[in-house]
Amino acid sequence: MNNNDVLANSVVAHMVENDAFSKWMGIEVLEIREGYSKIKMSIREEMVNGFGIVHGGIPFSLADSAFAFACNNRNNLSVALDTSITFAKAIHPGDSLVAEAEEIHNGRSTGVYVITITNQTGQQVAMFKGTCFRTGKKLIESGSL
Amino acid sequence: MNNNDVLANSVVAHMVENDAFSKWMGIEVLEIREGYSKIKMSIREEMVNGFGIVHGGIPFSLADSAFAFACNNRNNLSVALDTSITFAKAIHPGDSLVAEAEEIHNGRSTGVYVITITNQTGQQVAMFKGTCFRTGKKLIESGSL
Amino acid sequence: MNNNDVLANSVVAHMVENDAFSKWMGIEVLEIREGYSKIKMSIREEMVNGFGIVHGGIPFSLADSAFAFACNNRNNLSVALDTSITFAKAIHPGDSLVAEAEEIHNGRSTGVYVITITNQTGQQVAMFKGTCFRTGKKLIESGSL
Amino acid sequence: MNNNDVLANSVVAHMVENDAFSKWMGIEVLEIREGYSKIKMSIREEMVNGFGIVHGGIPFSLADSAFAFACNNRNNLSVALDTSITFAKAIHPGDSLVAEAEEIHNGRSTGVYVITITNQTGQQVAMFKGTCFRTGKKLIESGSL
Repeated sequence: MNNNDVLANSVVAHMVENDAFSKWMGIEVLEIREGYSKIKMSIREEMVNGFGIVHGGIPFSLADSAFAFACNNRNNLSVALDTSITFAKAIHPGDSLVAEAEEIHNGRSTGVYVITITNQTGQQVAMFKGTCFRTGKKLIESGSL
Repeated sequence: MNNNDVLANSVVAHMVENDAFSKWMGIEVLEIREGYSKIKMSIREEMVNGFGIVHGGIPFSLADSAFAFACNNRNNLSVALDTSITFAKAIHPGDSLVAEAEEIHNGRSTGVYVITITNQTGQQVAMFKGTCFRTGKKLIESGSL
Repeated sequence: MNNNDVLANSVVAHMVENDAFSKWMGIEVLEIREGYSKIKMSIREEMVNGFGIVHGGIPFSLADSAFAFACNNRNNLSVALDTSITFAKAIHPGDSLVAEAEEIHNGRSTGVYVITITNQTGQQVAMFKGTCFRTGKKLIESGSL
Repeated sequence: MNNNDVLANSVVAHMVENDAFSKWMGIEVLEIREGYSKIKMSIREEMVNGFGIVHGGIPFSLADSAFAFACNNRNNLSVALDTSITFAKAIHPGDSLVAEAEEIHNGRSTGVYVITITNQTGQQVAMFKGTCFRTGKKLIESGSL
């Protein structure tokens, strides 16, 4: 693992530690690299909407966490500006979802990421695009590495 | 209240009854009319992300519920296709949010809605746009009115 | 007209003067205020796509010009990051369109604008949302006012 | 070339023949397959905005044409509902752009496509996402193949 990926993992470990809502969702980190993240979660009964399928907020939240873990992991605190999600297939309790965030653009002040969500059979169930603003602040001190 | 608004309220009452995730969020319905909804929620500590501010999935979920309550309430089962949200201000535990959904387009097969989220001081904290596909199926039987 | 609106009009006059593509489209400025713009155009035969209706790029371009005239007019050079457009009704040659840009958020580094496009009968044909990044550079010198 | 790709090419040939605005842009078709398209264009001086860079409506229009050529080419007339575009790099006169449309979702009533635009040096300059509604109407008669 190169130094940038070591930093990326340290930053995300710090983020996860304090992320109450990602904990409620049961998010598990699979892989972190510079500008990249891959995470997973399982769908529970308490996540359904009035139609018995998963509330749209759940896949959005999963993708938004993957986005945050990818766009912040150079230790440059970044906040979401604009995000969009397209729903391609219904998600049900018991499904296991993986979200993978890839960096499309890494600018000085902004970044753009695409997150794809696939289910346990490999089908793409949603696609998310996020744009962030980079504040220039650090998330962790270098000494904490 | 005219007949369409009576139907709208019956449909949303049915939706809310079965919506486990909206219940977890603590969503309260303020007003329902044909093609329109207004709902509220309070932000709790367990909804924050790794930065101590609210996880982006929470305002998205609130807006997505308002969207669902507005776009389904003619008793024509509608599913979200595309949604986007722009974040304008950070949200903190203790904040009280109101989401108001307005219908921009009511087509035979599709609909477009804009949801604005304001906080307890009247500041707009997020803006959501959603497009749905209308399936033509009913959510409740006429007899259930 | 207050000083900010005078500046807004000067900035947009400067932008229009050099905007070759807005000229090709035949865009006419109706009203400019601080953070606001209203412009119009007429649809010509050369703007249609393979279905005989207007190419989606035309209403997008009209909205994008209204966005630019609104988000730059405090004389703070701003560039588009993310934009989305929802199409509600088909547009035909001979139609006359008005685009009105309103400011949803005016941050130090970013701004968010909603542009609605209506046709000659007052129907809303499209809705556009744009997020810009503010560079801090000027478009015109104060002396040019 | 299989039968579906033969049909795809026939449909797009028919679309291009009548697409006045794509002609004005100078769009050239590079490759068409079922649910896929790749097209190119060159940027001219008359396509710039008031800042001397390309008007955002131009890359949008290029992507929108690629979207239309991909989502219609099963001979199922489809109309754009929602589109979004993220701008990653400025585009200048003289640049040569390629847009490639890939199918993310091919539903009975809707489809989702991602279009990436790259310049002559291989840099990604914009990313577009489009959702369409499928009308079930044909664009060309089978006899015309």
